[in-house]
Amino acid sequence: MSEALDLPQVYRHHVFACFQQRPPQHPRGSCGQAGAQPLWQRLQQRMEGKPDMAMVATGCLGFCRAGPLMVVYPQGIWYAPRTPEDVDEIVDLHLLGGTPVERLIILPQP
Amino acid sequence: MSEALDLPQVYRHHVFACFQQRPPQHPRGSCGQAGAQPLWQRLQQRMEGKPDMAMVATGCLGFCRAGPLMVVYPQGIWYAPRTPEDVDEIVDLHLLGGTPVERLIILPQP
Repeated sequence: MSEALDLPQVYRHHVFACFQQRPPQHPRGSCGQAGAQPLWQRLQQRMEGKPDMAMVATGCLGFCRAGPLMVVYPQGIWYAPRTPEDVDEIVDLHLLGGTPVERLIILPQP
Repeated sequence: MSEALDLPQVYRHHVFACFQQRPPQHPRGSCGQAGAQPLWQRLQQRMEGKPDMAMVATGCLGFCRAGPLMVVYPQGIWYAPRTPEDVDEIVDLHLLGGTPVERLIILPQP
């Protein structure tokens, strides 16, 4: 027995995007406050109807100052896109093409 | 270049738990309606303060009839616990012990 049970992955790409919204003056900031809404709207449009991937809305993923944040599993790759064009690049190159977009990757430090 | 970029995982266990709540008569059901709240409260208590794991609240993960649902990444293992004791078993055996709890695993079919 180990963590590597031989189970198939349900999705090739399971994308978790932070929808946390805090008030403008909140000291932690938030992905919502950092402009997540139009980015995740774009992401949702681009991912819709693709059977081997799914997008999930989340609460706070932590690392709020680095947002807007999304993480792609099972690869465990964190992205901080800034524009809808960044989102398109992640969808086209990584989710559809299989090649992570290194310039948009961040590596949060817990 | 491939999806297997040599990046460290931020968390050994990143746990996503569905907090979706729909009204009692809603045809899709929901994890909230299926009794998720006390389970995720327990999960949060048990995971708190452990630096190599994190729990994230999500919206709908799909597969609503199978809930309450949680998924553990990067392993990609889906669980449908029914009781706080089930949650304890997942925490003790899988998250802390490294051995998935086969009796509570489900394999959703998209």
